[in-house]
Amino acid sequence: MKRIGVLTSGGDAPGMNACIRAVVLTAAAYNLDVVGFHHGYNGLLDEDYQTLLPQHVQHIIQHGGTILKSARCKALYTDAGAVQAAQVLHKLQLDALVIIGGDGSFRGALAIAPHYHGQLIGVPGTIDNDVDGTDFTIGFATAIDTALDAIDKIRDTADAFERIFLVELMGRHSGYIALSAGIAAGAEQIICPEFGPVSKAQLTKLLAPIQHAQLLRGKSSYIMVVAENSYPGGTIALAEDLSAELGTECRACILGHIQRGGKPVGADRILATKLGAYAVEQLVNGAHLMMAGELNQQAVLYPLAQTGERTKQIDPYLVRWQQQIASD
Amino acid sequence: MKRIGVLTSGGDAPGMNACIRAVVLTAAAYNLDVVGFHHGYNGLLDEDYQTLLPQHVQHIIQHGGTILKSARCKALYTDAGAVQAAQVLHKLQLDALVIIGGDGSFRGALAIAPHYHGQLIGVPGTIDNDVDGTDFTIGFATAIDTALDAIDKIRDTADAFERIFLVELMGRHSGYIALSAGIAAGAEQIICPEFGPVSKAQLTKLLAPIQHAQLLRGKSSYIMVVAENSYPGGTIALAEDLSAELGTECRACILGHIQRGGKPVGADRILATKLGAYAVEQLVNGAHLMMAGELNQQAVLYPLAQTGERTKQIDPYLVRWQQQIASD
Amino acid sequence: MKRIGVLTSGGDAPGMNACIRAVVLTAAAYNLDVVGFHHGYNGLLDEDYQTLLPQHVQHIIQHGGTILKSARCKALYTDAGAVQAAQVLHKLQLDALVIIGGDGSFRGALAIAPHYHGQLIGVPGTIDNDVDGTDFTIGFATAIDTALDAIDKIRDTADAFERIFLVELMGRHSGYIALSAGIAAGAEQIICPEFGPVSKAQLTKLLAPIQHAQLLRGKSSYIMVVAENSYPGGTIALAEDLSAELGTECRACILGHIQRGGKPVGADRILATKLGAYAVEQLVNGAHLMMAGELNQQAVLYPLAQTGERTKQIDPYLVRWQQQIASD
Amino acid sequence: MKRIGVLTSGGDAPGMNACIRAVVLTAAAYNLDVVGFHHGYNGLLDEDYQTLLPQHVQHIIQHGGTILKSARCKALYTDAGAVQAAQVLHKLQLDALVIIGGDGSFRGALAIAPHYHGQLIGVPGTIDNDVDGTDFTIGFATAIDTALDAIDKIRDTADAFERIFLVELMGRHSGYIALSAGIAAGAEQIICPEFGPVSKAQLTKLLAPIQHAQLLRGKSSYIMVVAENSYPGGTIALAEDLSAELGTECRACILGHIQRGGKPVGADRILATKLGAYAVEQLVNGAHLMMAGELNQQAVLYPLAQTGERTKQIDPYLVRWQQQIASD
Repeated sequence: MKRIGVLTSGGDAPGMNACIRAVVLTAAAYNLDVVGFHHGYNGLLDEDYQTLLPQHVQHIIQHGGTILKSARCKALYTDAGAVQAAQVLHKLQLDALVIIGGDGSFRGALAIAPHYHGQLIGVPGTIDNDVDGTDFTIGFATAIDTALDAIDKIRDTADAFERIFLVELMGRHSGYIALSAGIAAGAEQIICPEFGPVSKAQLTKLLAPIQHAQLLRGKSSYIMVVAENSYPGGTIALAEDLSAELGTECRACILGHIQRGGKPVGADRILATKLGAYAVEQLVNGAHLMMAGELNQQAVLYPLAQTGERTKQIDPYLVRWQQQIASD
Repeated sequence: MKRIGVLTSGGDAPGMNACIRAVVLTAAAYNLDVVGFHHGYNGLLDEDYQTLLPQHVQHIIQHGGTILKSARCKALYTDAGAVQAAQVLHKLQLDALVIIGGDGSFRGALAIAPHYHGQLIGVPGTIDNDVDGTDFTIGFATAIDTALDAIDKIRDTADAFERIFLVELMGRHSGYIALSAGIAAGAEQIICPEFGPVSKAQLTKLLAPIQHAQLLRGKSSYIMVVAENSYPGGTIALAEDLSAELGTECRACILGHIQRGGKPVGADRILATKLGAYAVEQLVNGAHLMMAGELNQQAVLYPLAQTGERTKQIDPYLVRWQQQIASD
Repeated sequence: MKRIGVLTSGGDAPGMNACIRAVVLTAAAYNLDVVGFHHGYNGLLDEDYQTLLPQHVQHIIQHGGTILKSARCKALYTDAGAVQAAQVLHKLQLDALVIIGGDGSFRGALAIAPHYHGQLIGVPGTIDNDVDGTDFTIGFATAIDTALDAIDKIRDTADAFERIFLVELMGRHSGYIALSAGIAAGAEQIICPEFGPVSKAQLTKLLAPIQHAQLLRGKSSYIMVVAENSYPGGTIALAEDLSAELGTECRACILGHIQRGGKPVGADRILATKLGAYAVEQLVNGAHLMMAGELNQQAVLYPLAQTGERTKQIDPYLVRWQQQIASD
Repeated sequence: MKRIGVLTSGGDAPGMNACIRAVVLTAAAYNLDVVGFHHGYNGLLDEDYQTLLPQHVQHIIQHGGTILKSARCKALYTDAGAVQAAQVLHKLQLDALVIIGGDGSFRGALAIAPHYHGQLIGVPGTIDNDVDGTDFTIGFATAIDTALDAIDKIRDTADAFERIFLVELMGRHSGYIALSAGIAAGAEQIICPEFGPVSKAQLTKLLAPIQHAQLLRGKSSYIMVVAENSYPGGTIALAEDLSAELGTECRACILGHIQRGGKPVGADRILATKLGAYAVEQLVNGAHLMMAGELNQQAVLYPLAQTGERTKQIDPYLVRWQQQIASD
């Protein structure tokens, strides 16, 4: 092995830069050259890339975003696209490619594989923590703290005004961010896919805990953390419907894209460093079509084809506890 | 003077607690008793209050929100309400009342004044910085830094994806927050009331700078900071209309209530301390129907009745510079 | 079981309040009364305590420090002290006591046990992460991020001036904080007990990587993270000795007590909530002389007597990687 | 005017990058070329420089440190050095030079002036706020918030342990940082040059407020903010001497270099932008040997030769208030 490529793909996540750095520094330790593609797989198709030396990754560990840029790339998911990607990898004499992204991005690697003679390895980088084969994805810990910081601020106002606030967090179709940030914020109620769907007809089951909290506990504020895609019409509609039911104004805040950016927290920088280093080491050891993940604090390989299976579950202990406290 | 009251009214602002603390500590230095009303003027009408001793304000200087709670209070703006407020002040033997809030809250003081024998003084506490008679209001500096932190995070994603983002900031009918945060964030374009209205018909004047930036400067991301109430239908509508014109997706983020909360920054804690102390000192000196503000770093009194005159202007130098750079 | 006590002991750690909250809310769900002792075991000996209801723990989840105060308590470690502690527990009719602290604090529980008829359970709360039987202690994640934030700032100056800085971090006799923060900060070198002792005679082995970095990599700044107690005379002496050897000024920064305080990060709030809840549940299930810890994301019980055995090791993968990169 | 130079000199300050950016963008608006010298005046003497185009300053507004590096430069303060500096300026056909730094750095400009045919202008960039002719220097607001964040954290521990802490802040020979951060932190006592010297013989005057606070106010923690160079032997010696007098352990924390770095806060980015832009505009207008400062929110010119006169005073109102409260 002499020369490897690396790219970041899909939604950006804090820690992607730390991961690129670890790939480059570890590759240098193994005397491997590194090429970085720009804009995810688009840079691969367009031959838009740069050489990455250790000095190019100095002091990027603390920055959000990705120096290689990221993007989604529809063109890759055609036969022609996959063949072309493999051709570019061959042309640039790359023995392997490291893909930093979510399980959607890993499907791109699976599409390229039949046409490519080299090795492909994934590193889980997404704030959503919805990748099978790793306890945590790079970016998740930072997203929690960003959400938390926002909810803490909203708590100040909710408390000053004795108001009900709904805070919508990201997570696509999983509740990792909502549950984690909700528990950490001391949110009075958490709505996420894993707790079952909520429709307008079932609004009443959300009301009881609110009324209970206000009457019995004398709570001066009430915060509901809501995972995106949890209610028909979205969180603004949910706030309106709850307001109508309760006869009290409920305000909605949609955190949106601030959850993707920012300086990565320590946990994400360490995870990114560990997995980036491990990915390169395992390429040297012959790994192919695997993801470098971490389970129980151990770096492990996991088949890339199984990373999207959705068998990973959010902490059942915290789910149960939250429901016990909320219904109490 | 033996006994004074204090309340926080209107939208909460970081530094209100620091101001309450300064009022209480300064009052103690003058041997004055202090009573704090809850929920703004509502606590005054409802006789919902607490004694405030120095130990009650220990270590609140660093907290957002307000320990006295805040609220709006329609009842005060009837004759009956104003009379009742004055009666409660008399009944509790309060020689003066300190109102921490915006110019809307100060109108409450003007309503009470004809019926009250004591002194009334205001302290400007609102994130909007839209109060005449003071260079800065308590909470404004923190709101800027909160907005900035969010925009910096959005910049990471905008940059990684080479996208156009619109970020809506608060400010009711003034552009202080939008201009300040926009300049500080290095936003490529700022839309605020002071720069003139924007309607669908005038969209094209927003497009030229975008196209210019992308073509001439090779900018990898483009952020427009938008003051609330700047476009018919709101910032989401503006993003949609711009997307249609440009043929590129423009994303909107509405920062919302996170701008109101959070630990106050140093500038707000210092301003709140100075104005809270000054308000009490000036009450002792006989001030009535005045606001304790700061102009050119000097604590000054300003007639409460003139605080809402809207003659205060956002920094013309920065306005001009921003337009020069954007159009360049 | 009807009534339990809780106290925080030893060095304070961010998340202790979140843990107290979880103990109180979970106890309420089991209809248990809760009493909180002040100043660690001192409050137990002095009968200085308060009732803790759910409303007392509202909105403390986000605050550093501990509402129950903490302290060390020599008096407990005499026979008379241990007997007295047990007597107070009996007198107050407490069926169990929850001790939130480090392994030193758990020895207090072991001292009380022979004299007490109730149950004793520990929850690991210390920034040092040096407690056997749990992957992480409450406060560790926040301490890493606090250290990181400081090192990132020092990096700015080190970079602007092209200087060598030594940053001393806490950790008593373990290198968890130094290694984790050092890796996360991209520190060029990390000195901690687990990497072997450094004496004046061995200074030269620290010099080679510095000279290597400057010559080969063109590094503009160089940061060494140093665990406390790593060098005879301390980190200031190390900086002086290195300066003499290198003929270049090396500056030392001692982070000190800022590492103990601050708003807990999400990971600490979640861990504190989980372990506080689990401790109460396990008391109800009959646990005694155990610590509620977390191993591999699972809440587990671990014998209190073994929590100080020092068999826990810092991540060998990261240790090896750091040395590989530094020596490269 | 066709071509100008810019450099950052002396201790780095957050906002220097924002200022460089404003210089470059404003110069572009006037069709001026810009050259940036590295390492302060050293880069001028060594002809170590780079061209600065708008794309070179993209997204640096939010970063601490300085992309041009900074340094002190003894060589400039010899006749030969000053002559050589002027020669390089002439050789590179620079019509003017912008110096971002403190009054020490401005003396360098005064040394060059007799030998140089072009214009010299300064912009005040230092965390110390000790430059005459401007209300605030670039970096001061950020340094306050950094210090505040650290003191808030120390408060958590001080409170948990009911301890006395001394926190030493920077400021060379002025008390701006100590007074501002101390007021904002609600420090119980502030020691800075402007409050008069403290010697071992006068220790007792520091004790009375401590004892007063503990006895009368039931304060659970006590924080003294100490400006550097305030006590013979330093703040660690002061802590030891106070401990001996009080019979209670007083801990010292030296914040050190973390005060210099970090992401600039909004106020510093705005000030840096305004003064950088103004400096270039005034060069175009013919300014020479002036500093671009801000007084009463207005950008103004001030003679460079008078910037070190030390007539600027810290806010007398806050000084008086702090002493009144502390002695109360």
